[in-house]
Amino acid sequence: MGFAKENDLVLLIARDRKRFIIRLTSGGELHTHRGCVKHDDLIGQPLGRELTSHLGYPFLVLEPSTHDLIKEIKRTTQIVYPKDIGYMLLKLNVRPGSQVVEGGTGSGGLTLALAQSVMPTGHVYSYEVRPDVLALARKNLEGLGLDCYVDLKQRDIEEGFDETDADALFLDVRTPWQYLAQARQALKGGGFFGSIVPTTNQVVHLIEALPQHGFADIEVEELLLRPYKVVPGRLRPMDRMVAHTGYLIFARKIDAPDASQWFAPRRGRSRARRRSEESKQNGSG
Amino acid sequence: MGFAKENDLVLLIARDRKRFIIRLTSGGELHTHRGCVKHDDLIGQPLGRELTSHLGYPFLVLEPSTHDLIKEIKRTTQIVYPKDIGYMLLKLNVRPGSQVVEGGTGSGGLTLALAQSVMPTGHVYSYEVRPDVLALARKNLEGLGLDCYVDLKQRDIEEGFDETDADALFLDVRTPWQYLAQARQALKGGGFFGSIVPTTNQVVHLIEALPQHGFADIEVEELLLRPYKVVPGRLRPMDRMVAHTGYLIFARKIDAPDASQWFAPRRGRSRARRRSEESKQNGSG
Amino acid sequence: MGFAKENDLVLLIARDRKRFIIRLTSGGELHTHRGCVKHDDLIGQPLGRELTSHLGYPFLVLEPSTHDLIKEIKRTTQIVYPKDIGYMLLKLNVRPGSQVVEGGTGSGGLTLALAQSVMPTGHVYSYEVRPDVLALARKNLEGLGLDCYVDLKQRDIEEGFDETDADALFLDVRTPWQYLAQARQALKGGGFFGSIVPTTNQVVHLIEALPQHGFADIEVEELLLRPYKVVPGRLRPMDRMVAHTGYLIFARKIDAPDASQWFAPRRGRSRARRRSEESKQNGSG
Amino acid sequence: MGFAKENDLVLLIARDRKRFIIRLTSGGELHTHRGCVKHDDLIGQPLGRELTSHLGYPFLVLEPSTHDLIKEIKRTTQIVYPKDIGYMLLKLNVRPGSQVVEGGTGSGGLTLALAQSVMPTGHVYSYEVRPDVLALARKNLEGLGLDCYVDLKQRDIEEGFDETDADALFLDVRTPWQYLAQARQALKGGGFFGSIVPTTNQVVHLIEALPQHGFADIEVEELLLRPYKVVPGRLRPMDRMVAHTGYLIFARKIDAPDASQWFAPRRGRSRARRRSEESKQNGSG
Repeated sequence: MGFAKENDLVLLIARDRKRFIIRLTSGGELHTHRGCVKHDDLIGQPLGRELTSHLGYPFLVLEPSTHDLIKEIKRTTQIVYPKDIGYMLLKLNVRPGSQVVEGGTGSGGLTLALAQSVMPTGHVYSYEVRPDVLALARKNLEGLGLDCYVDLKQRDIEEGFDETDADALFLDVRTPWQYLAQARQALKGGGFFGSIVPTTNQVVHLIEALPQHGFADIEVEELLLRPYKVVPGRLRPMDRMVAHTGYLIFARKIDAPDASQWFAPRRGRSRARRRSEESKQNGSG
Repeated sequence: MGFAKENDLVLLIARDRKRFIIRLTSGGELHTHRGCVKHDDLIGQPLGRELTSHLGYPFLVLEPSTHDLIKEIKRTTQIVYPKDIGYMLLKLNVRPGSQVVEGGTGSGGLTLALAQSVMPTGHVYSYEVRPDVLALARKNLEGLGLDCYVDLKQRDIEEGFDETDADALFLDVRTPWQYLAQARQALKGGGFFGSIVPTTNQVVHLIEALPQHGFADIEVEELLLRPYKVVPGRLRPMDRMVAHTGYLIFARKIDAPDASQWFAPRRGRSRARRRSEESKQNGSG
Repeated sequence: MGFAKENDLVLLIARDRKRFIIRLTSGGELHTHRGCVKHDDLIGQPLGRELTSHLGYPFLVLEPSTHDLIKEIKRTTQIVYPKDIGYMLLKLNVRPGSQVVEGGTGSGGLTLALAQSVMPTGHVYSYEVRPDVLALARKNLEGLGLDCYVDLKQRDIEEGFDETDADALFLDVRTPWQYLAQARQALKGGGFFGSIVPTTNQVVHLIEALPQHGFADIEVEELLLRPYKVVPGRLRPMDRMVAHTGYLIFARKIDAPDASQWFAPRRGRSRARRRSEESKQNGSG
Repeated sequence: MGFAKENDLVLLIARDRKRFIIRLTSGGELHTHRGCVKHDDLIGQPLGRELTSHLGYPFLVLEPSTHDLIKEIKRTTQIVYPKDIGYMLLKLNVRPGSQVVEGGTGSGGLTLALAQSVMPTGHVYSYEVRPDVLALARKNLEGLGLDCYVDLKQRDIEEGFDETDADALFLDVRTPWQYLAQARQALKGGGFFGSIVPTTNQVVHLIEALPQHGFADIEVEELLLRPYKVVPGRLRPMDRMVAHTGYLIFARKIDAPDASQWFAPRRGRSRARRRSEESKQNGSG
């Protein structure tokens, strides 16, 4: 452990923080504007050390994290951000052995994180309607050696999913509320549903439709990631940050006469108090 | 799938959003202020449905997520929040098969998430100096059937860790900067380091000490989780939210003459621009 | 200066941070659970000092700020928060001498801040439909000696405002989009319009209606106030914070064939870049 | 009202959101890359309308707000942001008639907002050590016709302020904790103190020094401004936002044997509860 082997993925970081992820092949070379790095100088060598390009420029050699892979994959679509992915994996209960369905493969950023989480015994079934987008996702997953944990299917999810007892299902499409019947059919009883949408209008559509399709325990949340400048004597947040990626919506498939009765506001506070607060909000002032 | 079996963990949600997690045992009973629920009425039955207590009060029966488990375990210490855990798992590259060391078991909330993520082939080694706290964590992990993936050790981590090639190491203690030599020894080359601390003073101590102990690629971040009221016609954030859980600090163990050279500010912006901005910041108004 | 005179407003703070605002009258007394404070012990005495109640309990004696007044007035409605008020005053260009119209007096929190800002030569015209609410606002303003700068009118603003050349107009009502014709008539050319609403649905209604009524340069913003614990050795945000008060909407009354042409996204970025980003957002992942 | 007069400040907005602030002079011309606008076409004409440059390019003609002026003044230093200024004016009780001292004039952004707020009877005394910076501030204030409400003094504030009974004092310098004795001397009893600093380290220094110099009722806060895209059918926050401007620190000058006794954490919660929460935070785990 801690040594790079042929076929491993390796992350190289330059002094200017530029990051390169490569798969080590005997005889391979990485060409950068800072000079060339030979794969053979990495294979069999320890990770976590400095290496010098043929132009004398230093690189840090590391194993990439799932976070690094998500950030660095080739993409033509908006990716789901790691901050959102990490939280969703916990909320959707994605674990080794899980069977997960994804509607909207996109560039495969979430797909690779799902594959990493369910392997080796679980599986991911991911659907994408656009062939070119799916081809890129396939290339990304193959490049990471994760394609054996994922079935990629080119299909309009309006036609439904093939799976029927999925532990979790995630929709990353523009109009998720249009595919809730299909989502319901793909999930097991009590199965976990998740989605991410960028606009409040989409949130409204989705939380309106979810109880109509027998989904309950609905939650809407957003995560803000605030990075800091790493200077001990002048600790402070960065000047700018990503203000918004998307609203996260979570729900559970239930079998009940009226799911909307389980479509309640937040736990942990009494109804009375909630009511009083809401009436205050409504009253102008 | 989608059915509850004996020995399964099950989540019961009442109409007032109160949540109960139980392990199903033949003949068992859950007593609540809303009446009694017999385990035998759940065993062999589908999940995701309504159930009525002997007092006629309805409950929703679901499989609990890792998120639910973290939130509902018994605790005597401050737990790490799911929003932070999910992100850390991606940043520390915790995956099925990972060997992970944790300094500061606490009530075991993070420990259980680590165990869920590395199983079945990986392992977690978690240290805690307080015997009573460790006993609670042990009880929590046993209750979830996760104890086989975790070695719990009662020890002051000042004495060091037993492991030497860990993939990742996480410190959840009050003075993490005092245990960096020990952390370094436990990690493999390039290994992932993480920590969470509540105050800015602790962040300053830690990011000062990290490069001195050969850690690089340091990042400091915080995550804000903003929950929304789930009302389609009146979508808005909740009135109040958790304003702060802790600052997340990430780093990599490296082997270099001077780790602080890799202790740079953020990637993605030119040095020149950074410099100009910082000088502006320094210049007072 | 720095001395309390008869008829002055004074703020008393107890050790437990409880705050009392009183108007000094010769012979007056403040009765608290910590004992009694005689006004005569304050009149003619310096501010910014400690004072002891007849039970020996210490109080800090200070001049109240506008911020204190807003926070401490009696209310039956949701007040506008100081963080929002301060920003709105700058955005709506409220200054000494301004003529300002307010639709929805409520408890008078914003009204008092407006009065403080436009005095002595400016004036505030504030409308409220509920007589009991208006009576409370009147009492609050009279108690602060600000009633001479404010005309309070009991009326449904659907019937319109009496003013015609107001510098600024602010709507704090539940359905502000229903009163834009009236608002337009009350404002001078180029006049400043502002509103605050708690839900995203209301924002959507309002920004849809504004350009239809000849309002342009529209902005939607929200402010988050994050308080910190004041402990030098352990600086950190408070545990909890107010997550949401309302969305602020700003616009200008213009006279143009098509106001929606000035209903553009944010300044400061090229159209091309905006377009490329938006198309990315639309494309699903 | 609503008409532009000679010598008025006018804001012109182009379709691409570029903003120009000019002072109208008979015979004057504004030259832009979109063509020329003659001041005489504005003087005596209504505000809030469209105007066409000699190249046929449309501009919106408006009265600038204090917010616009702050954003558009010429600067060589970091300015205080309007969101912070608006809140500070309320917290420092700056009103028509106030006597306010400012340490660190900078480009004069805060100075102009102070002048706008205290006029016509109040006054601002602003100190700046760098002559070139002061010259720019002077030019900015003269350009806005606000110089009669401000005394600009070129001096190192280490030497103290000339004023002795100021209502409020604001320090916008790099090491505000070094000038607290001077600040104390300039303020009236109970006077309002404010400061803004970008780093947590500076906050720690300042809140440590404040009670030692007889300042109490200390608060540390930060404001986050989140702008939204103004699109009714796709309402969502902007992609990026300013993540940090500075930490706001507020305090009051008091005369007490031990100011630190009034240096307590936040009001509104019982001591017991605070203590229990803090001990939880301290406990690691």
